[in-house]
Amino acid sequence: MRILVANVNTTQTMTDGIAEAARAVAAPGTEIIGLTPDFGAESCEGNFESYLAAIAVMDKVVKYEGQYDAVIQAGYGEHGREGLQELLTVPVVDITDAAASTAMYLGRSYSVVTTLDRAVPLIEDRLILAGLHDRCASVRSSGLGVLELESDPERAIQAIAAEAQRAVEIDRAEVIVLGCGGMAELKQRVVELCGVPVVDGVQAAVAVAEGLVRLGLTTSKVRTYAQPRPKRITGFGTRTR
Amino acid sequence: MRILVANVNTTQTMTDGIAEAARAVAAPGTEIIGLTPDFGAESCEGNFESYLAAIAVMDKVVKYEGQYDAVIQAGYGEHGREGLQELLTVPVVDITDAAASTAMYLGRSYSVVTTLDRAVPLIEDRLILAGLHDRCASVRSSGLGVLELESDPERAIQAIAAEAQRAVEIDRAEVIVLGCGGMAELKQRVVELCGVPVVDGVQAAVAVAEGLVRLGLTTSKVRTYAQPRPKRITGFGTRTR
Amino acid sequence: MRILVANVNTTQTMTDGIAEAARAVAAPGTEIIGLTPDFGAESCEGNFESYLAAIAVMDKVVKYEGQYDAVIQAGYGEHGREGLQELLTVPVVDITDAAASTAMYLGRSYSVVTTLDRAVPLIEDRLILAGLHDRCASVRSSGLGVLELESDPERAIQAIAAEAQRAVEIDRAEVIVLGCGGMAELKQRVVELCGVPVVDGVQAAVAVAEGLVRLGLTTSKVRTYAQPRPKRITGFGTRTR
Amino acid sequence: MRILVANVNTTQTMTDGIAEAARAVAAPGTEIIGLTPDFGAESCEGNFESYLAAIAVMDKVVKYEGQYDAVIQAGYGEHGREGLQELLTVPVVDITDAAASTAMYLGRSYSVVTTLDRAVPLIEDRLILAGLHDRCASVRSSGLGVLELESDPERAIQAIAAEAQRAVEIDRAEVIVLGCGGMAELKQRVVELCGVPVVDGVQAAVAVAEGLVRLGLTTSKVRTYAQPRPKRITGFGTRTR
Amino acid sequence: MRILVANVNTTQTMTDGIAEAARAVAAPGTEIIGLTPDFGAESCEGNFESYLAAIAVMDKVVKYEGQYDAVIQAGYGEHGREGLQELLTVPVVDITDAAASTAMYLGRSYSVVTTLDRAVPLIEDRLILAGLHDRCASVRSSGLGVLELESDPERAIQAIAAEAQRAVEIDRAEVIVLGCGGMAELKQRVVELCGVPVVDGVQAAVAVAEGLVRLGLTTSKVRTYAQPRPKRITGFGTRTR
Amino acid sequence: MRILVANVNTTQTMTDGIAEAARAVAAPGTEIIGLTPDFGAESCEGNFESYLAAIAVMDKVVKYEGQYDAVIQAGYGEHGREGLQELLTVPVVDITDAAASTAMYLGRSYSVVTTLDRAVPLIEDRLILAGLHDRCASVRSSGLGVLELESDPERAIQAIAAEAQRAVEIDRAEVIVLGCGGMAELKQRVVELCGVPVVDGVQAAVAVAEGLVRLGLTTSKVRTYAQPRPKRITGFGTRTR
Repeated sequence: MRILVANVNTTQTMTDGIAEAARAVAAPGTEIIGLTPDFGAESCEGNFESYLAAIAVMDKVVKYEGQYDAVIQAGYGEHGREGLQELLTVPVVDITDAAASTAMYLGRSYSVVTTLDRAVPLIEDRLILAGLHDRCASVRSSGLGVLELESDPERAIQAIAAEAQRAVEIDRAEVIVLGCGGMAELKQRVVELCGVPVVDGVQAAVAVAEGLVRLGLTTSKVRTYAQPRPKRITGFGTRTR
Repeated sequence: MRILVANVNTTQTMTDGIAEAARAVAAPGTEIIGLTPDFGAESCEGNFESYLAAIAVMDKVVKYEGQYDAVIQAGYGEHGREGLQELLTVPVVDITDAAASTAMYLGRSYSVVTTLDRAVPLIEDRLILAGLHDRCASVRSSGLGVLELESDPERAIQAIAAEAQRAVEIDRAEVIVLGCGGMAELKQRVVELCGVPVVDGVQAAVAVAEGLVRLGLTTSKVRTYAQPRPKRITGFGTRTR
Repeated sequence: MRILVANVNTTQTMTDGIAEAARAVAAPGTEIIGLTPDFGAESCEGNFESYLAAIAVMDKVVKYEGQYDAVIQAGYGEHGREGLQELLTVPVVDITDAAASTAMYLGRSYSVVTTLDRAVPLIEDRLILAGLHDRCASVRSSGLGVLELESDPERAIQAIAAEAQRAVEIDRAEVIVLGCGGMAELKQRVVELCGVPVVDGVQAAVAVAEGLVRLGLTTSKVRTYAQPRPKRITGFGTRTR
Repeated sequence: MRILVANVNTTQTMTDGIAEAARAVAAPGTEIIGLTPDFGAESCEGNFESYLAAIAVMDKVVKYEGQYDAVIQAGYGEHGREGLQELLTVPVVDITDAAASTAMYLGRSYSVVTTLDRAVPLIEDRLILAGLHDRCASVRSSGLGVLELESDPERAIQAIAAEAQRAVEIDRAEVIVLGCGGMAELKQRVVELCGVPVVDGVQAAVAVAEGLVRLGLTTSKVRTYAQPRPKRITGFGTRTR
Repeated sequence: MRILVANVNTTQTMTDGIAEAARAVAAPGTEIIGLTPDFGAESCEGNFESYLAAIAVMDKVVKYEGQYDAVIQAGYGEHGREGLQELLTVPVVDITDAAASTAMYLGRSYSVVTTLDRAVPLIEDRLILAGLHDRCASVRSSGLGVLELESDPERAIQAIAAEAQRAVEIDRAEVIVLGCGGMAELKQRVVELCGVPVVDGVQAAVAVAEGLVRLGLTTSKVRTYAQPRPKRITGFGTRTR
Repeated sequence: MRILVANVNTTQTMTDGIAEAARAVAAPGTEIIGLTPDFGAESCEGNFESYLAAIAVMDKVVKYEGQYDAVIQAGYGEHGREGLQELLTVPVVDITDAAASTAMYLGRSYSVVTTLDRAVPLIEDRLILAGLHDRCASVRSSGLGVLELESDPERAIQAIAAEAQRAVEIDRAEVIVLGCGGMAELKQRVVELCGVPVVDGVQAAVAVAEGLVRLGLTTSKVRTYAQPRPKRITGFGTRTR
């Protein structure tokens, strides 16, 4: 099967890292296609940038020419998933949701460790709307920006592991979710430092998407995610499947 | 003071109707400026169109040259408010929130009567995130599309009044909120037919915005709505105040 | 228009301070009438005193001879609002609710800073019943009694600002609500010390009440706030409008 | 032991009925003293009347000369319990709470059948604040006023049984709570008609109060129900124990 | 009346202590019968042991030959209550629920102090399902195992009192619940050290059970707790009443 | 990999059907081992039978001699999952949870259609504890017993499809979950009749379990699911991995 993995920001190196993390866990015969939006922010760290990413991802996905079986939106706590679900019938998996529902199989509660403090409310809101917030012990920020994760991985590991430790001890989390698209490679180190299972959203999303496809399941079209009604739209071309 | 009232769709006649409804309740000395997005759907009836509207409204507002004291986002249950709050320091009032919090002063519970069934989940999600859902008795749909409201007002009144009546009798609503940007002129008729207070979002938002401005209050910038960080953004020009 | 602002306790100087704070933000043409109950506690700091205030305020308001367009109950976290709503058709605005719903337009979450620790549960209960608690980050107490706020304003400012700071840093509040009828004059100082918007309940209530009146909205009479049924009542005279 | 059972309204015959119902289940050695307020409404059917009853009950209880071990507030869904808890150290049991927590031992969910529709919101609010609403399937009204229950018992039984039946079948209630102070004598008939356990609040409250007294438990005075602070109070004499 | 008090573990000395605590508060004429399961763990400290206890208690109770009027399941936060309710018509009272609902009459919020950290989630889950969690301020663990409570009572008192103190000061609890079957004798000491009411589950359950029996109430059989359907069951003999 | 699929009841033909449904979706290289408990009910339809199944499943699994990578508990709304999670380190997937979290990827809300009315509360409780209830529109029963599903499949399909239809139209479900271990073969028919995605718990659980294993994730052992403490256990032999 073929899965499109859409980065939410315009940094190609991050798309490459995300696709690589996805391929590392993909089943034999699963092809991972990384997509980088044609417009938007080099990194998403707030609502304005996230809303822009929402349509940039929709734009990129609907412009994709080939066949595909599922789409992963690879931004943590970003807007837009419901829009993709309207435009497509194939399963759409947001890494925010995939990481949370995966973590809930491993422990009674989970915490998310993300980048900047300002990302925390966005993540909380997405988890609430997804109906996956009840068992969320906390969403904590490492204080590092998205791009700093790439520029100084060692510092990132230390900062993330420190917050993960606080989540386990203070917030009583039993599983840690890495709340950012670019954190996969830090995973093993955090596991060693914290002693609890650590879930990376992109990799969790690959497993979820493969499962949905193998089960032959598609997006419900009866109400919330029904195809958009035919109408005049200015300044944004949509071709849908 | 000057208040920008941003329509979420590209239909100019609807912008005119919204601005007119706003002016009908504006205090002496309040100037209402109607804005129509430069791109997007002729009417917003789903997530894809709403996400598109989110950035179209941000685009239009940040491009506005003059001074202004507050911004009203005049779409019911639409995405985008948090983005505007990041980009601006003046108060941003979404008509979804304004109508709900106004209704809560008049009765113990309120119901929203909107257009299509597919709009119901969007409205519920916005009210949940705004923290205004606890006293929401129900969100009901009249089954009419946004544009049908304009083309056949009498039929619209009957359909909306019928749902409002069900909300009062079955869902135990004590106040009705008109869940669409273009419903203001139907208000009086629905009041007569249902015998409960009826709140129009645009008009409620004008009163709220005027109040916030007169109290000298502005958007908090400590976390969720902090100014976006300076970074490279492709394909969308932002000038913020 | 004329707005009655009812103090919940029998201290005339506090009524004067409340009315002054209200006039400071009232629109041109709005007349503010301060009312002091004829019986009850010199300051309300608990349920017994608050229940007494509830009927003392109803008693004072229904005995008021003149015309008026709205009533503000100027006690933070006090009982009684629903009773006034039954007795009147004009809008009734409790400063507890007005401050909370106003704060919710300015940030994603708010904290209330009140007087004594024992007032915290009353405030939390009122916010829960009003459906305005979801976005409440915390209710904190300065440890000062209501009358101490008046006797030693400088100490009050320091104590309130300190709690406000904790609310912003620890509880992640983005807006501060001053949880007491007599705090309006401290507002500006707290803003300077905390760097977040600060909302005073009395002033917020004036803006809300003016808005409701200008929108021509009145209390719903279909169920919860229906006029009391005619019956024999001993020891309390009610004349209602 | 001696238990004061305070009626919330001024109808002596209802006090007698309540006291009789209490005595019917009281343990040997338990003395039941019925109290009728010196002022207020002949029947409580709304917030104004309920707030008045709140202080009328406090007034009557604190004026009681003799010793007593517990107080029962015998009004369903009425204000005031927290005030009594401040003024007294002996246990205070509201029949609203006693009926609900008793019902929760007998089935997974319960419904309350009360008098007028306007009483429903008051009951829901009290159950929410008491933390006993999670397992409440519904609060239904028979449409009969409090005094009609006495004047036409047979009609009352039919109306209450009909609502109880709907609660079991439609709302999935497994236990029925009689939501009024004067319903005890209807209990057996409703049990026969509905086939589920039926709980009368006054009788449940007697059992709860006796249990608390025998366990030697008293009201916590650390915060919410601490003794009122000494202060000048006008127009209401309080002597507390 | 006769009440069966079923210990959840196989330690006879603990059964004896529980029965003694029960008898200390039982009304004249109430006979307390302590039951020890025929299989299971010497102490229950987790889900596996608790599930085993669930059927061990059912097994022991249904095998009991004599008459009885109520059953108390004397394990804090253990599984099984719903099963007993299906098998019996007499009231079944779990000490987890009895302690919580009793505490809620004494203060606005309560905290549970239990044994090991791993017991905390079980207790929280039981309280959530019982609909008694809303007013739970926290569940704290003393870090001592069930058997350590017996072997070193003085150390247990200190550890429990220390957590109780934190619950009152940090979590704002107003009442403390002793979250273990074997803590009754520590109660008085903790009261002295903490200055708030302290509720022992076993003793609270005796008062609740006595009350339910005196009120003539039995378990609802309409749905959740209906008698098991007749069917072939292997390896577990059930005789039910 | 090898996955153990444990039936909760003692009917071998049902185990065979479950294993067959699991194999139909298992990835190449996944071996499915069906387990039938050595004791318990021929079908689980209530709490007593479910508690018995809980330990019967644990007993059967821990007695299993070979290697395995994950365990699926194939009973809908049954007790016991947390016990297995304590005893094992490999992932444990309950079909109740797997079906719900899978459904949540396909639509905004889902409904469960189960067998008997008495199973509804058990399912609701499990979903609440799993933190997967927020987006549950309803749990409906077909009125058919577990064994009737096998004896009269055509009647089962009609009854289930009818409830599914009501869930979509009345409860606004967008996805249907088949709430029973033996319903897999009915799935396609219900899809055709209802026009929304239909999720079978066993098949969803296989995909989830395969994903968790491929991601190398195991159960967190820091608190809730820590290995049982070494202690004397009577009448139940546990060997754990």
